Amino acid sequence: MTKVQSHMTMSLDGFIAQPDDQVGELFEWYEAGDVAVPSANERVEFRVDAASAPILKELTEHCGAIVAGRRLFDMTGGWDDRHPAGAPVVVVSHTVPEDAAERWPRTVFVDGVAAAIERARQIAGERDVTIASATITQQALALGLVDEVCVSLVPVLFGEGVPYFAAFDTGHLLLEDPEVVQGKRAVHLRYPVRRG
Amino acid sequence: MTKVQSHMTMSLDGFIAQPDDQVGELFEWYEAGDVAVPSANERVEFRVDAASAPILKELTEHCGAIVAGRRLFDMTGGWDDRHPAGAPVVVVSHTVPEDAAERWPRTVFVDGVAAAIERARQIAGERDVTIASATITQQALALGLVDEVCVSLVPVLFGEGVPYFAAFDTGHLLLEDPEVVQGKRAVHLRYPVRRG
Repeated sequence: MTKVQSHMTMSLDGFIAQPDDQVGELFEWYEAGDVAVPSANERVEFRVDAASAPILKELTEHCGAIVAGRRLFDMTGGWDDRHPAGAPVVVVSHTVPEDAAERWPRTVFVDGVAAAIERARQIAGERDVTIASATITQQALALGLVDEVCVSLVPVLFGEGVPYFAAFDTGHLLLEDPEVVQGKRAVHLRYPVRRG
Repeated sequence: MTKVQSHMTMSLDGFIAQPDDQVGELFEWYEAGDVAVPSANERVEFRVDAASAPILKELTEHCGAIVAGRRLFDMTGGWDDRHPAGAPVVVVSHTVPEDAAERWPRTVFVDGVAAAIERARQIAGERDVTIASATITQQALALGLVDEVCVSLVPVLFGEGVPYFAAFDTGHLLLEDPEVVQGKRAVHLRYPVRRG
């Protein structure tokens, strides 16, 4: 059964980036150990601690498609069409870049969050869909389309920045107790979204 | 050695209360189990799960003085001079209530965060000082007066409310990797503040 999950690395005070979009100390856990975890993009190498390695492997190996916002796509140059998790990316965007067919042949552009997640589900097959942008996560949570919220919680207070979560009109959103993995420079938390 | 720590129960998106100051689902963990933890205030009873009990006992037993803001003091009626943690309360306040001597004989009123923490240290002796208000925590963190940041992290997204942390002028505040205890309806995280 395909699961739709979001995964972000977040400061203890809720930020996934500084106001200038830089990640500051957030990604230190990706190179805080000596266990190599393969990435599909040769420009990205993970070397994590022994506790973080299985969860990172699982997030990577189980991922059948990634849903990202257009802003993240633009900021990363579309990961050169090779996202480190190794899966095709579905970009939520009103427009398709002119050179998309040549530069990002594996990447799909879909207008609207619900449609993008549906498309990602088709691509993922038996594997999971991972949402990689905060704004898309927020919209998908409000639409009830997220099965699991994953957070790699980093021991730092940013004070200000780009938040993982945002206000929504639907009242409090209840989660189940999480799976907890204590890694180096990140505590990994996987919260199933409560249903019914 | 007296340690100055803050402890708050916080939603995954960083809030310690709703916009109307109510705690919503946050305090469910205080009654989510069948292990009774004594409180110094007979109106407050804790019944927590087996994993949460030792950390709650430790927070309570090691607490030699509590520092609270005036707003929290007013909201709780000054805990009737008997804070559940059993320790005297030092209230940061510009003014002293007229009936303080009769209604709150154990409670101390001090003008200013640094002075209040210093006074609480004297009262605590060998035991710890616990900061129980978010605004006081924020000011104490900015002043470098906090040794440990404790969070009972609850699996709920509020969307809006009263935040635990706030912006500060001193850049990112780095914490050490936390002690982690996985309780029912709360993951307890104790972060030493990084020094130097």
